[in-house]
Amino acid sequence: MWGIELQKRNKISLARQIFLSLKQSILMGQISQGEVLPSTRELAKGLGVSRNTVCDAYDMLLTEGFIVSRQGAPSHVAEGLHITQKEVVSPKEHKRERPPIRWDFKTGQPDLSLFPWPLWSQMIRRATNTLSAQQLEYSGPKGYEPLCEEIAHWLMRSRSMDVNPEDIFITSGATQAFHLLVDILHKEGHAFALESPSHPGIRTVIQDRGHLLQWMPVDQQGADISCIRDKDISTVYVTPSHQFPLGGIFPATRRAALIRLASEKDFYIIEDDYDSEFRYSGAPVSPIYSMDSSRVVYVGTFSKTLFPSLRIGFTVLPKPLQAKWKHYRNFMDVQNPVLEQVALTEFLRKRKMDKHIQHMRRVYAEKRNVLLNAIEHSFSNAVQFWGDASGLHVALQFPGMEFGKQFMLNCRNAGIRIQPVSQYCSVQDNHKDKLLTGYGHLSDTQIREGVQALFELIAKNSSGSLEFK
Amino acid sequence: MWGIELQKRNKISLARQIFLSLKQSILMGQISQGEVLPSTRELAKGLGVSRNTVCDAYDMLLTEGFIVSRQGAPSHVAEGLHITQKEVVSPKEHKRERPPIRWDFKTGQPDLSLFPWPLWSQMIRRATNTLSAQQLEYSGPKGYEPLCEEIAHWLMRSRSMDVNPEDIFITSGATQAFHLLVDILHKEGHAFALESPSHPGIRTVIQDRGHLLQWMPVDQQGADISCIRDKDISTVYVTPSHQFPLGGIFPATRRAALIRLASEKDFYIIEDDYDSEFRYSGAPVSPIYSMDSSRVVYVGTFSKTLFPSLRIGFTVLPKPLQAKWKHYRNFMDVQNPVLEQVALTEFLRKRKMDKHIQHMRRVYAEKRNVLLNAIEHSFSNAVQFWGDASGLHVALQFPGMEFGKQFMLNCRNAGIRIQPVSQYCSVQDNHKDKLLTGYGHLSDTQIREGVQALFELIAKNSSGSLEFK
Repeated sequence: MWGIELQKRNKISLARQIFLSLKQSILMGQISQGEVLPSTRELAKGLGVSRNTVCDAYDMLLTEGFIVSRQGAPSHVAEGLHITQKEVVSPKEHKRERPPIRWDFKTGQPDLSLFPWPLWSQMIRRATNTLSAQQLEYSGPKGYEPLCEEIAHWLMRSRSMDVNPEDIFITSGATQAFHLLVDILHKEGHAFALESPSHPGIRTVIQDRGHLLQWMPVDQQGADISCIRDKDISTVYVTPSHQFPLGGIFPATRRAALIRLASEKDFYIIEDDYDSEFRYSGAPVSPIYSMDSSRVVYVGTFSKTLFPSLRIGFTVLPKPLQAKWKHYRNFMDVQNPVLEQVALTEFLRKRKMDKHIQHMRRVYAEKRNVLLNAIEHSFSNAVQFWGDASGLHVALQFPGMEFGKQFMLNCRNAGIRIQPVSQYCSVQDNHKDKLLTGYGHLSDTQIREGVQALFELIAKNSSGSLEFK
Repeated sequence: MWGIELQKRNKISLARQIFLSLKQSILMGQISQGEVLPSTRELAKGLGVSRNTVCDAYDMLLTEGFIVSRQGAPSHVAEGLHITQKEVVSPKEHKRERPPIRWDFKTGQPDLSLFPWPLWSQMIRRATNTLSAQQLEYSGPKGYEPLCEEIAHWLMRSRSMDVNPEDIFITSGATQAFHLLVDILHKEGHAFALESPSHPGIRTVIQDRGHLLQWMPVDQQGADISCIRDKDISTVYVTPSHQFPLGGIFPATRRAALIRLASEKDFYIIEDDYDSEFRYSGAPVSPIYSMDSSRVVYVGTFSKTLFPSLRIGFTVLPKPLQAKWKHYRNFMDVQNPVLEQVALTEFLRKRKMDKHIQHMRRVYAEKRNVLLNAIEHSFSNAVQFWGDASGLHVALQFPGMEFGKQFMLNCRNAGIRIQPVSQYCSVQDNHKDKLLTGYGHLSDTQIREGVQALFELIAKNSSGSLEFK
């Protein structure tokens, strides 16, 4: 306690040991100046010694001026005693001098400056006012029931999905859903089938576990599932509404074929509906879940519609997977914190979510127009857009070009952060002519300047081989 | 018409209703592949809606690939869409009628009615007022830095531990720490050594992963480590300050021997310091971490000192494990929500934690006295106490008795929930004469009545073979 370790058989008296120990801590700065020391009664109890012993020790500190005491007030540490800075030995970091990033085209980044924080704070305050002592207890791995109900209503409003709240399980974001699903759906000798390119989240978990992987190539309509027909597959992971990162929309024939195949070969489909909320043109795309809810695990998240550090997502689970999910979640981290779940319930119930998303859809649609116009202005017809109908990023194809490591380095040195599609691919030689431009978090000026900077760099790198206007 | 029934007052638009209905009919095979759809004019007339509405519906079908259209030709249904919907039969649940639980002696249960909720709400409100847009972003798997610093100070004040905040990693409770540590510390062909009896948390994760387990028997001083000397061990998990559930305090000689062995055989020690804050008698026990921080992973939680649904714990990690930890946490759930971390930082900085724990220690000490007195009053010297110096539960030994399934069933039918120690053991025939009585959450009356009810049941079951006064 308070850095004091007593040795009862020591020749030095207990009082002196306490004195020496506290003095040392004060000198080393582990106890700061002005800090109030525990009462003699409390410290005596904590150390298992008599109160007189502690009084003696405090007297020694007082006498030597380490602590200051005023009638009736608790003793506190005197000022200006800290002599030795505790040495923090951090490994020498050899960071190369690099220019700051001026234009950051990273993907999946919402504009958090527009999040209605005062409104959210109000929901949090209300939640703190309504929580009961019972809600401070564990409530189990399924999640806050009223939240599951509101999510079911929300899925009907936003996605025309007819979901039973009993099948909805709250998660710490989509990341946790994928992690748990890899453990739950793994079958020995069977592979997880992933799109190539795809998000590294689920792929990394599968690889960390040493499970088999089967890649499905992606064209402008999403994954080509023909390559998994003759394979042993436990799970197929797809992003059908807006393929990540190429943006294709999985057409109905492929959806139906995938569901038939799942039924035939007895596998599950993980449907990652990661940014279906932000759609700017064309009609909404129904989730595969609506075609066959018994074969599909639907995964959604509020990281992009609200904010990432909220850590709330959800999954809609077929009945046969629910017992296993509860078991694994229980021994993983039990459940989400309760407070944000209560606040989010209210946010959905009051339709604040609907309003926020409507607002953000308009904002992102404008940013997208700025981006597309800037790109067309600079690159003319040397560039083709992939997946520009929805989401928070667009993939750009520059036919005939290859974006390798040197190009990326040049970008970085010019203050541009941009990702090549090839980094999400199974084999690095796929989609080498494509770049990803995330724009959700950028201002119009940043977008225009960033595109111009990118144009100059590409023009220089292509050494005249591309025809720009 | 075409199986379409429109509800004009529905929230879903008419176009979307038409689309959903046609899609359903196509999937169910009620409209066959290749079939020509009615012209937009015809269907609009038939349904009594505008032609634009039908055009919109057809556009949605076209976008999702349900129909195919060629210039000038009528739209027809795409091929290969028919799937068969599988019927979901949910298993009937047969719940047996049971009397309500009147006396619940479950362990590890804090008294949440005494949690200073208004104070905590204030901290949450302040946190909502200070959070910046940047803090809504991901901040990475380590946790909120100011919180790590406050936890370091807190560990010095409460446990005399000298910890560098750089080595502290925030977790979603101790449960998540154990889950991650099993993945990080596993070595092929090496076992995890656990105390028997021990908490099922880490054991379940090890067993789910199919890793090897080595049990260490527990006596009144905690684990006996002699059995692991000649084994290949990757990790030893111990609860040295208050063995769970028997309450023994690991003596200094065993601690030193364990650390020497860890060094010799190159394994890590997980130190679960789960309720060291509530100690009622005797000198404080220093954590093993303080003896050799390079070999020990220290795990702490705020579930018992604050409340379980807060979901904040932490671990102090040796440097060589930190990169792997960050990687695994990143792909598990990224991080804790930010709001509670900011609030807890303030709660620690303002010494509200110290005050709350002081208060609760007094409360629990009184409850413990009530429990010990009630047991002595009823059972006289037929019972021996294990681990009554700290924590939120006491283990009771009834020499010569055996608490089996039938006894537990009798308890349950008498409205008593109580756990036998044997359920935490590697082999069920160990510690069969011991029961666990958690008391932190019970009122004095509940404790007295519960002990009386337990006495009556045991007296009946022991059929006079035990000598009570």
